[in-house]
Amino acid sequence: MWTASQFFAGCPALEQDPKAQLQRFIKQHSGKPVVCVTSGGTAVPLERRCVRFIDNFSSGSRGALAVEAFLQAGYAVIYIYRANTVQPFTNGTHSERALQWLFEQATERQDASLSLPAGSAELVASAVQRFKQVHHESTLLRLPFTTLFEYLLVLREAALALAFLESRAMMFLAAAVSDFFMPWQDMEEHKIQSRSGPLTLELQQVPKMLGELRQHWAPKACLISFKLETDQQLLLQKAGRALELYAVDAVVANLLETRKEEVWILQRSNTLQQPQRLTRPPQDDFIEAALVARIVEIHQQHIHALT
Amino acid sequence: MWTASQFFAGCPALEQDPKAQLQRFIKQHSGKPVVCVTSGGTAVPLERRCVRFIDNFSSGSRGALAVEAFLQAGYAVIYIYRANTVQPFTNGTHSERALQWLFEQATERQDASLSLPAGSAELVASAVQRFKQVHHESTLLRLPFTTLFEYLLVLREAALALAFLESRAMMFLAAAVSDFFMPWQDMEEHKIQSRSGPLTLELQQVPKMLGELRQHWAPKACLISFKLETDQQLLLQKAGRALELYAVDAVVANLLETRKEEVWILQRSNTLQQPQRLTRPPQDDFIEAALVARIVEIHQQHIHALT
Repeated sequence: MWTASQFFAGCPALEQDPKAQLQRFIKQHSGKPVVCVTSGGTAVPLERRCVRFIDNFSSGSRGALAVEAFLQAGYAVIYIYRANTVQPFTNGTHSERALQWLFEQATERQDASLSLPAGSAELVASAVQRFKQVHHESTLLRLPFTTLFEYLLVLREAALALAFLESRAMMFLAAAVSDFFMPWQDMEEHKIQSRSGPLTLELQQVPKMLGELRQHWAPKACLISFKLETDQQLLLQKAGRALELYAVDAVVANLLETRKEEVWILQRSNTLQQPQRLTRPPQDDFIEAALVARIVEIHQQHIHALT
Repeated sequence: MWTASQFFAGCPALEQDPKAQLQRFIKQHSGKPVVCVTSGGTAVPLERRCVRFIDNFSSGSRGALAVEAFLQAGYAVIYIYRANTVQPFTNGTHSERALQWLFEQATERQDASLSLPAGSAELVASAVQRFKQVHHESTLLRLPFTTLFEYLLVLREAALALAFLESRAMMFLAAAVSDFFMPWQDMEEHKIQSRSGPLTLELQQVPKMLGELRQHWAPKACLISFKLETDQQLLLQKAGRALELYAVDAVVANLLETRKEEVWILQRSNTLQQPQRLTRPPQDDFIEAALVARIVEIHQQHIHALT
């Protein structure tokens, strides 16, 4: 069973070290609450010159919409996201579809502008405006990753940098992190070749990093983890166990098939010990605004309790 | 070892049957040459309620840029692509980056239009214009897929529909198709649970469909297959074997690390039997225009030979 130390010792190094960016960002926003939102699935390479990998289904829309809601709520956001997943400011849509929609709507004009019909124009103008505001105020730090190794290395750097803010920092861990991986030393150098029989892959358990976060990296931060299951019987039981085992401050539990409509929030400091079910308000297109409003309250309680 | 018949017998059905769309499209363009371009990697589900899957690294830019070049060359194009990969008309860029670039460049104006600075405006105007032309002339049929099952089912339907055009049809098979899969019957119903030890996955070989294409589905079509390797020693040897084994009309061979700069084309009817190396012309941003020009010649020779 691999420990966290062994895992990091065996990790290939990051191409770019995010330390300096992170420190600059945190210093710049020292008056605000800061949240680190993680989003998307982590790719587990099966070969060193990676052609094949194991992946988790995760569109990234939960994280992207949560980023928008946190920004609206006055947070500075560190956004650790899987490259090419759904991004903020695109109405929870994959950029492919958003861009195609834009091309269908737009008409080029002589003066090098794109004209849009009324309804679409408002949607796009609002997105562009919020995008530019965030860009202007530098309240969003984007740190893309692809592999599990990159994700955990960047997560660790972000958490270590955020430790400085103590309880004012929050980690909103919506990324779908692989449970299993192939250690770098076990990987073949080149693309695995077709063969005449079945292929057997042996994968090791990824060490749970929530414990590291809680105990070593950012001990005073407000930690929000996620649990996704496909079996309703297992969901709340496993979410409850995660809460106890890793001492996170809240677990957001959801079922794959209904995740856009309902979530359950289990809070560590909630003496009633009942999971709180939260549904998408009918007037909202997405559940994330309501979810983030609740999470912000939890964070405020956390700050208050530790002050 | 699974046969093609066994594979299709065990496939979950497509959500939407593309037969009618395909027949309409082919009828509409009965005067033009038609190419089916496949693009992107195929996801191999590991669970029935799919959370995890095995995937192939494939941005889709080769296919997307080839679609643009084929359209410019007067083809009608059936585009079988992995959802959320690089799309045509975005300069070979992932939509995420393209959209972000657009947001950075654009300024909203009072009259609900987006204004762009001069250089950017031309780029976008050209893309929007070509997009709309294709939309207006209906020369591009988009068929997205995610899983290996969906890909092979859609590919088969497209090939069977194209058989009607005989040698006037071409298949440009740039998709990165999985070599290994987990049969539906072997899959767990629910998300594979974390456990205390290693996880062993046993995967079966995917039956090679090139043979089915050549012999049964579209016997007179011009077939262009691709070979990607990471080891130069293996590349041309394997490309040559694919040519003999499956009797495709040409194989485009490339190395992962240099695929944007050079390819080798092995042509079945070329009696010299030497692979032709093709490099990106310095004045071109991408190699695909030159590659497609060569492939169009091969198709014309194919049509001529069979007429």
